Amino acid sequence: MARPDGRRPDQLRPVRITRGWSRHPEGSVLVEFGDTRVLCTASVTEGVPRWRKGSGLGWVTAEYAMLPRATNTRSDRESVKGRVGGRTHEISRLVGRSLRACIDLKALGENSVVLDCDVLQADGGTRTAAITGAYVALHDAVRWLADRRSLAAGLDRVMHRSVAAVSVGVIAGEARLDLCYEEDVTAEVDMNVVCTGTGDFVEVQGTGEAGVFGRERLDALLDLGVAGCATLAEAQRKALAG
Amino acid sequence: MARPDGRRPDQLRPVRITRGWSRHPEGSVLVEFGDTRVLCTASVTEGVPRWRKGSGLGWVTAEYAMLPRATNTRSDRESVKGRVGGRTHEISRLVGRSLRACIDLKALGENSVVLDCDVLQADGGTRTAAITGAYVALHDAVRWLADRRSLAAGLDRVMHRSVAAVSVGVIAGEARLDLCYEEDVTAEVDMNVVCTGTGDFVEVQGTGEAGVFGRERLDALLDLGVAGCATLAEAQRKALAG
Amino acid sequence: MARPDGRRPDQLRPVRITRGWSRHPEGSVLVEFGDTRVLCTASVTEGVPRWRKGSGLGWVTAEYAMLPRATNTRSDRESVKGRVGGRTHEISRLVGRSLRACIDLKALGENSVVLDCDVLQADGGTRTAAITGAYVALHDAVRWLADRRSLAAGLDRVMHRSVAAVSVGVIAGEARLDLCYEEDVTAEVDMNVVCTGTGDFVEVQGTGEAGVFGRERLDALLDLGVAGCATLAEAQRKALAG
Amino acid sequence: MARPDGRRPDQLRPVRITRGWSRHPEGSVLVEFGDTRVLCTASVTEGVPRWRKGSGLGWVTAEYAMLPRATNTRSDRESVKGRVGGRTHEISRLVGRSLRACIDLKALGENSVVLDCDVLQADGGTRTAAITGAYVALHDAVRWLADRRSLAAGLDRVMHRSVAAVSVGVIAGEARLDLCYEEDVTAEVDMNVVCTGTGDFVEVQGTGEAGVFGRERLDALLDLGVAGCATLAEAQRKALAG
Amino acid sequence: MARPDGRRPDQLRPVRITRGWSRHPEGSVLVEFGDTRVLCTASVTEGVPRWRKGSGLGWVTAEYAMLPRATNTRSDRESVKGRVGGRTHEISRLVGRSLRACIDLKALGENSVVLDCDVLQADGGTRTAAITGAYVALHDAVRWLADRRSLAAGLDRVMHRSVAAVSVGVIAGEARLDLCYEEDVTAEVDMNVVCTGTGDFVEVQGTGEAGVFGRERLDALLDLGVAGCATLAEAQRKALAG
Amino acid sequence: MARPDGRRPDQLRPVRITRGWSRHPEGSVLVEFGDTRVLCTASVTEGVPRWRKGSGLGWVTAEYAMLPRATNTRSDRESVKGRVGGRTHEISRLVGRSLRACIDLKALGENSVVLDCDVLQADGGTRTAAITGAYVALHDAVRWLADRRSLAAGLDRVMHRSVAAVSVGVIAGEARLDLCYEEDVTAEVDMNVVCTGTGDFVEVQGTGEAGVFGRERLDALLDLGVAGCATLAEAQRKALAG
Repeated sequence: MARPDGRRPDQLRPVRITRGWSRHPEGSVLVEFGDTRVLCTASVTEGVPRWRKGSGLGWVTAEYAMLPRATNTRSDRESVKGRVGGRTHEISRLVGRSLRACIDLKALGENSVVLDCDVLQADGGTRTAAITGAYVALHDAVRWLADRRSLAAGLDRVMHRSVAAVSVGVIAGEARLDLCYEEDVTAEVDMNVVCTGTGDFVEVQGTGEAGVFGRERLDALLDLGVAGCATLAEAQRKALAG
Repeated sequence: MARPDGRRPDQLRPVRITRGWSRHPEGSVLVEFGDTRVLCTASVTEGVPRWRKGSGLGWVTAEYAMLPRATNTRSDRESVKGRVGGRTHEISRLVGRSLRACIDLKALGENSVVLDCDVLQADGGTRTAAITGAYVALHDAVRWLADRRSLAAGLDRVMHRSVAAVSVGVIAGEARLDLCYEEDVTAEVDMNVVCTGTGDFVEVQGTGEAGVFGRERLDALLDLGVAGCATLAEAQRKALAG
Repeated sequence: MARPDGRRPDQLRPVRITRGWSRHPEGSVLVEFGDTRVLCTASVTEGVPRWRKGSGLGWVTAEYAMLPRATNTRSDRESVKGRVGGRTHEISRLVGRSLRACIDLKALGENSVVLDCDVLQADGGTRTAAITGAYVALHDAVRWLADRRSLAAGLDRVMHRSVAAVSVGVIAGEARLDLCYEEDVTAEVDMNVVCTGTGDFVEVQGTGEAGVFGRERLDALLDLGVAGCATLAEAQRKALAG
Repeated sequence: MARPDGRRPDQLRPVRITRGWSRHPEGSVLVEFGDTRVLCTASVTEGVPRWRKGSGLGWVTAEYAMLPRATNTRSDRESVKGRVGGRTHEISRLVGRSLRACIDLKALGENSVVLDCDVLQADGGTRTAAITGAYVALHDAVRWLADRRSLAAGLDRVMHRSVAAVSVGVIAGEARLDLCYEEDVTAEVDMNVVCTGTGDFVEVQGTGEAGVFGRERLDALLDLGVAGCATLAEAQRKALAG
Repeated sequence: MARPDGRRPDQLRPVRITRGWSRHPEGSVLVEFGDTRVLCTASVTEGVPRWRKGSGLGWVTAEYAMLPRATNTRSDRESVKGRVGGRTHEISRLVGRSLRACIDLKALGENSVVLDCDVLQADGGTRTAAITGAYVALHDAVRWLADRRSLAAGLDRVMHRSVAAVSVGVIAGEARLDLCYEEDVTAEVDMNVVCTGTGDFVEVQGTGEAGVFGRERLDALLDLGVAGCATLAEAQRKALAG
Repeated sequence: MARPDGRRPDQLRPVRITRGWSRHPEGSVLVEFGDTRVLCTASVTEGVPRWRKGSGLGWVTAEYAMLPRATNTRSDRESVKGRVGGRTHEISRLVGRSLRACIDLKALGENSVVLDCDVLQADGGTRTAAITGAYVALHDAVRWLADRRSLAAGLDRVMHRSVAAVSVGVIAGEARLDLCYEEDVTAEVDMNVVCTGTGDFVEVQGTGEAGVFGRERLDALLDLGVAGCATLAEAQRKALAG
């Protein structure tokens, strides 16, 4: 059974990382994994939330959201519903944790960065695209900060790792990399892998809602995910060098 | 006193109307008034809200929102605050009323269109850009509908008028067309003019928070606004022909 | 086609302004435009909201609401629904802006006034009655303040303009002043005009939801509105002198 | 220690019951206990809430609220806070229970009445004034219903009891009837007594937040309350006869 | 007509008071009235809410809640509904008032205690069990405080009274003590009596939703309630001595 | 560095599974992992949510919550805050997904089961204890259902797998099973493993907030988790046989 877009099982969709997509934020990246399109902005503010004041540590947090018609059928806005849904909460927390893994909060000092990841168009893998793009936006924001305020360490020390993420899953018994929406909804196992640029894990989340999975299957998926993240890390490096 | 971007008082910013900007919606337009950038999507659903069932009439409504970092400083998300703010409500209602003025709801039949206007980048005039772009998205959505379901009338009869909007205001005693943010915050009088393609008014809202204004001033602002809307109507025609 | 209550097109309903209607507030006015009955109270507090502290400027804001059975059919309470609706928000903001136009916030100093406009009975024109009554309540509250604390200027300098408002509209092709509910729901064009005592505009909001309107029509409505506001300004003067 | 307004311990404040105070509701009463002023409206709708459909029984419910400046210092609106407070909830439930005690819900048939009790001015005893006024509004609403739809029984059978309420309390060791605000805040014991026109109890709520109370004290308070309710029942009869 | 569990009309269900049921809280009591099971925890924090700062007085407050399946059919969680219901509010306030009656807030000093009463299993009388158990938890928490910080008075002076509560009601014309759920739903009159260990009243709440009640009936219910509270006070003493 | 309670790295805390802990629910289990104590109830209702009607499939969902003083310091109630937090949402979704993996929803037919997991006392591992206990409660609820309504298959076919969960983590460089709170807060890597009774994975979630982890480390943690789940599955079997 071929993939909907004819890719090999271990092949990513075309990845595009556009820096400086919008004018106001300190970091602003439009990231595209095929038809999935996420605007990641990084907003710097001096100071940290109250519970962290006086700690000497900075703070990085993230908020993920989808435009109502990013998907095939329109969803009601969470602002209109008056509450943030469980899925949104969960992904926001995942993005925040992942990004905190790549930054030295002590070296950042008492500054805060909010990463807003707004899905403009969705075709599967929105959370992994969000992490991948947010890393580049964060990097730009910390560079902005380093240019203006004296940080406790150089940019490379503050941003001491890179982080990228990709989805993997099992469809019709085959392990595949970077699922599009059509694959995502039929996956027997669905996993998100978040890795550093040197191939270590930051987060691994695998779910078998429509089935369970053995150790071998898990190993194959992890292999695919690690390889995919390496390719993404390379794309991030190029974007930041460009 | 020159305008920040060197325009003549009666000159619009560069206007760009990109149709089909995103893949899923029945109509999808990225509209730009200078640095103001609004994504307008039109979502068609069969049927109408409960209170309108059996009336034979269609329904068109709008929701306006801003990404948190569309502006110079980040705003908290309304989904996180748990409530839609007064300004958002007010603009959503304005956009909805304006768009309902250009469509024959009887000819539309019991179908609904939701217009989502999400500001990706803000530099003044977001609500007028939203109306101007949403008209084109609505036109595309009604065309989509006309192609698939038999409507009670042809596309030109259903979309029996065009509608566009522009801001005008008084800065340092001078009446100006299409204010950018820097002008907007210092305007003594601020007015939004919504006109049909034939120059009739759909809505006029003028406010003098930092001052009051006489009849002559009002007349001059209306003249500017009508002229600006005529230019925008031309841009809409070109975009729809393109 | 005669008006429901037999008025001439350019005639207001009987206007009554009762000061001191309730005991606790610093200013308290029951304003009646025919059967529309709005209780406007002005509450003074020392100090200003946090975002305005240290500016030396005062603050005036307004909240509009309707009792659930002010209208012909009962509406659910917004407290029970857990959110303030779009219409309520919009009118509260309009009332606040209008009242800020008549007061010198610098001369007020760091004091705040909240204007609560609660519609006890509705028959069209509730927002314009609210503005007209709230002006008188605000005047009384500032007088109360002037009697107790030393303001930076005399009462007449602080309240340097009067402000009143009236609705106008087109029904069956005829421009009419001060619409009652029965007229309001069938109006082709509906406009609210807020003027100072000297006939300048503070705010103009015209909507043609059931139709559009040309410049001549707009001019006729503005003429009617300005004349109506002049009569209301006279009624305010009498009430404050009484 | 004399009472603030010179009343005898067992004396009510002047009571005024004005029927037909507003135009739209099926029953509408302005009730005054001295300076306490509550607008009670009764809104009839055909049918009952979903959970009661098909039972053959009617439904009566109540909502109590205060205008923000009914009291000496302004309270934030519950609509703006986004939630109904505990005190409001508690009183709404008490009013509803009390009114259901005076009506035969079977004879009412599947009709609903909502009693809205909005405090326009507060000086203690707002909940007891609300119950006392709401009874009269409910009576008018049931009469309205009896005039238009055939009920299963005559008006006197549907409204088979009258109900009135009064506060009693201990101030400086003295049992007093119908406390005004100044007394209410200093009361050692505070009790609300709801009685039928024939002197039976519908509800008794006594609280000793600033002290406890013995059986004799309780008995004296009950005696005072029963006598007060009898006087109020007489005032209700007169108002309904007027 | 016998009681469902064969008790005499004036007999309590078996009462169990288990101190130290959970590990973290300063006071923690599982109280059982028959099958009704409430976990009462007392949480001490230094300081008082803002509105009480500098008063030298402590603060005691309570929150009551039910697990969703404490009852026979599952109720939706109030956290999921996004609002605390009227009944919950009402009971939380009752528990708070009752507990404040037994403690000298001046002697407590500026410390706060929150009493959480969570119903794990419900069979009638949950609010009275909550009060009875919360007293013991509060006593333990104040003892904990007295052991660690110097209070202005000894434990016996701070906890200067005990407080307990029980429900009473009329079923089939018979006055009964400590109603179980089956009795509660059919009661003609339902009353909650809160008493001190010396037999004074703290709070009395009697309701006759399915009927009204005369003075004799009320007296009989009060007698039953006072006797029941005396037995509960004895159980509290034993538990605290144990 | 020894574990706080002296356990071996690969040793679970004492596990207790008490069936029938409360009276009303169709399934009710108190599960204890050391000092972590979670009450899991299973509530059966006929029918399924609207979006699933007519599918022939049943539905299983879960809600997780903590009592305010289950932890060392008191947390505000989510009902009082008016919204369910991100962590709560995330865990509820995890529990629901895990339990749906062990039941044949087709064989269940159009019946729903809600699993409420309320943490009465927390000492780390609350979500894994919740899953482990909820499985037993769900089993009892399906047995209850099988006894009363004819299901499409026998109990063993409906509950076609067992499911259990355990936390694993790296503390001071050592991989450990079933972390208590003190270990949890200092863990460099934290992972939750959900397995079937036959050792397949249902869900794997590993996070390295305070560090990243290599493949070998991940493998060691998975080994520990699988072994822990096997022991828990045995405890579940015993409990269900008991």
